[in-house]
Amino acid sequence: MTDLSAGAAWMAGRILPIAEAKIGVTDWALTHSDTVYDVVPVVGGAFFRLPDYLARFRASVQAGRFEIGMEDAEIAAALSSMVAASGLRDAYCAMVAARGTPRVPGDRDPRNCRNHFYAWAVPYVHVIKPEVIAAGASVWIAKMVRRIPPDSVNPRAKNYHWGDFTAGLFEAKEAGFETVLLCDHAGHVAEGPGFNAFAVIGDRVVTPETGVLEGITRRTVLEICAELGLATEIRPLPLEEFMAADEVFLSSSGGGVLPITRVDDRIFGNGVAGPVARQLHARYWDWTRRPEHRTPVPYPG
Amino acid sequence: MTDLSAGAAWMAGRILPIAEAKIGVTDWALTHSDTVYDVVPVVGGAFFRLPDYLARFRASVQAGRFEIGMEDAEIAAALSSMVAASGLRDAYCAMVAARGTPRVPGDRDPRNCRNHFYAWAVPYVHVIKPEVIAAGASVWIAKMVRRIPPDSVNPRAKNYHWGDFTAGLFEAKEAGFETVLLCDHAGHVAEGPGFNAFAVIGDRVVTPETGVLEGITRRTVLEICAELGLATEIRPLPLEEFMAADEVFLSSSGGGVLPITRVDDRIFGNGVAGPVARQLHARYWDWTRRPEHRTPVPYPG
Ligand SMILES: Cc1ncc(COP(=O)(O)O)c(C=O)c1O
Ligand SMILES: Cc1ncc(COP(=O)(O)O)c(C=O)c1O
Repeated sequence: MTDLSAGAAWMAGRILPIAEAKIGVTDWALTHSDTVYDVVPVVGGAFFRLPDYLARFRASVQAGRFEIGMEDAEIAAALSSMVAASGLRDAYCAMVAARGTPRVPGDRDPRNCRNHFYAWAVPYVHVIKPEVIAAGASVWIAKMVRRIPPDSVNPRAKNYHWGDFTAGLFEAKEAGFETVLLCDHAGHVAEGPGFNAFAVIGDRVVTPETGVLEGITRRTVLEICAELGLATEIRPLPLEEFMAADEVFLSSSGGGVLPITRVDDRIFGNGVAGPVARQLHARYWDWTRRPEHRTPVPYPG
Repeated sequence: MTDLSAGAAWMAGRILPIAEAKIGVTDWALTHSDTVYDVVPVVGGAFFRLPDYLARFRASVQAGRFEIGMEDAEIAAALSSMVAASGLRDAYCAMVAARGTPRVPGDRDPRNCRNHFYAWAVPYVHVIKPEVIAAGASVWIAKMVRRIPPDSVNPRAKNYHWGDFTAGLFEAKEAGFETVLLCDHAGHVAEGPGFNAFAVIGDRVVTPETGVLEGITRRTVLEICAELGLATEIRPLPLEEFMAADEVFLSSSGGGVLPITRVDDRIFGNGVAGPVARQLHARYWDWTRRPEHRTPVPYPG
């Protein structure tokens, strides 16, 4: 048996070791970044909120006009068999729709490409490592770069156009910060590489409305807030307001709720995660254990 | 001997058939569109303006902070040996710098990735087919999408962030047009998928200044204009002015100078390429035959 513990992929019905899963250099997935994708977390041997991730992926596929010839149930079966084969109990599980190549070489019409679907899973990825979060994580507000606006690339169709994030990450890392948060062209907080942003302002939990991916973790946070009786607001969030908030945190399938203790020069909560973020962090992991949110992976044996 | 006439690639010092040249699905080239690239044309058995394309690629590599460990002369040697092996006399020859994957899995710091270089060549690509150009080519002005702004992704570092172009191409093709031209957020003409734009306004040849790739063909056009004694202007070009121009044309390494006879509902030159565009088109091909611009490919035998 091949060892798939470093990761596995599903391509055209076959399960492969992650190192063997490759895409041709002329695929528009690469040459035009012409893909949509999604990432569902596997936590403790089960997919978390799988139907919600599949629904978002389907919406991205439709927005990007991909024809992948697979129903949600078939995608779920592919992901399940792949993660099961990998044996991974905690995984980052990606599904991708790719434009492919034109049926006639040299054709430039995106409607004439052979689209395809593939998936891959690797050990669970934390956008910020838990030990960094525990010690107090820092965020840099990008100075040189603005989030790609929604009328250029639709951020709700989850996509690999990360040039703005990568430029921001270089800034952040050079400045000694853990990660980066980008603003939009109006100076409102947008999102960062792999996460949405939240501010706790008085008794309200606020997150940006537009120009961002509608994160499933963001949705979980909003639903947890409802459960806890915390008021939420989904609206434009000016950077000044974010910087003056009582607490700030990030949300991502790669780590859940991520309390932040420093943004640029501003220290939040004397360098300790605030009470709302801590409560949401803990409750997020509770939610991943609730049976109604879990789709168990059918591991062999 | 392997048949490389469909295309060849150069990867880590080996020359492969294009169909075997692949990139791992977790490479940031794919998952973050974290690449810069360039494309030099091969015309009649020689690279055209190779040093200029190499210099632009080098500038992109530096702007994107890639470390590919190859000097220009080594890149030139790789491209030469690859095109020579393919036997292609007219080719589209791509060179790519890719971020690669982090040395430590799960690391999110772009500085910690193993960057790499690869190249590939396929038969010459025309962004608009010569027979379409001859019959009169049409351009759609994108209505739903704006060019990604330069403070989000630097358009001068040649990159694969084509989501805006692809959305525009869908619009254009649905409307029955050949290709699409995008405007920036200020309503000025920017560029399209694979080309710069020009307008002939009275006795001046005008092309946009900012928010676009500095095309090598654009440069060739400007230099040909100088040779012909035509005045040029590099400046913001409002869409209204473009639509009211005497002639419009595109420039690309994939076809040289491309006269356009229709933009949206506006017909230019009664549907026939204008005199300036025709002259530049012919002169471009003359230039590709001038020895001082040619780097002959060392075909075997
Ligand atoms: C740009 C961006 N925003 C937000 C998120 C968070 O979304 P989710 O909570 O669904 O992981 C991601 C996740 O990868 C992302 O890439
Ligand atoms: C976005 C964009 N603009 C302009 C061009 C034209 O540049 P060049 O003349 O160097 O081919 C290209 C070429 O691919 C391009 O991709």
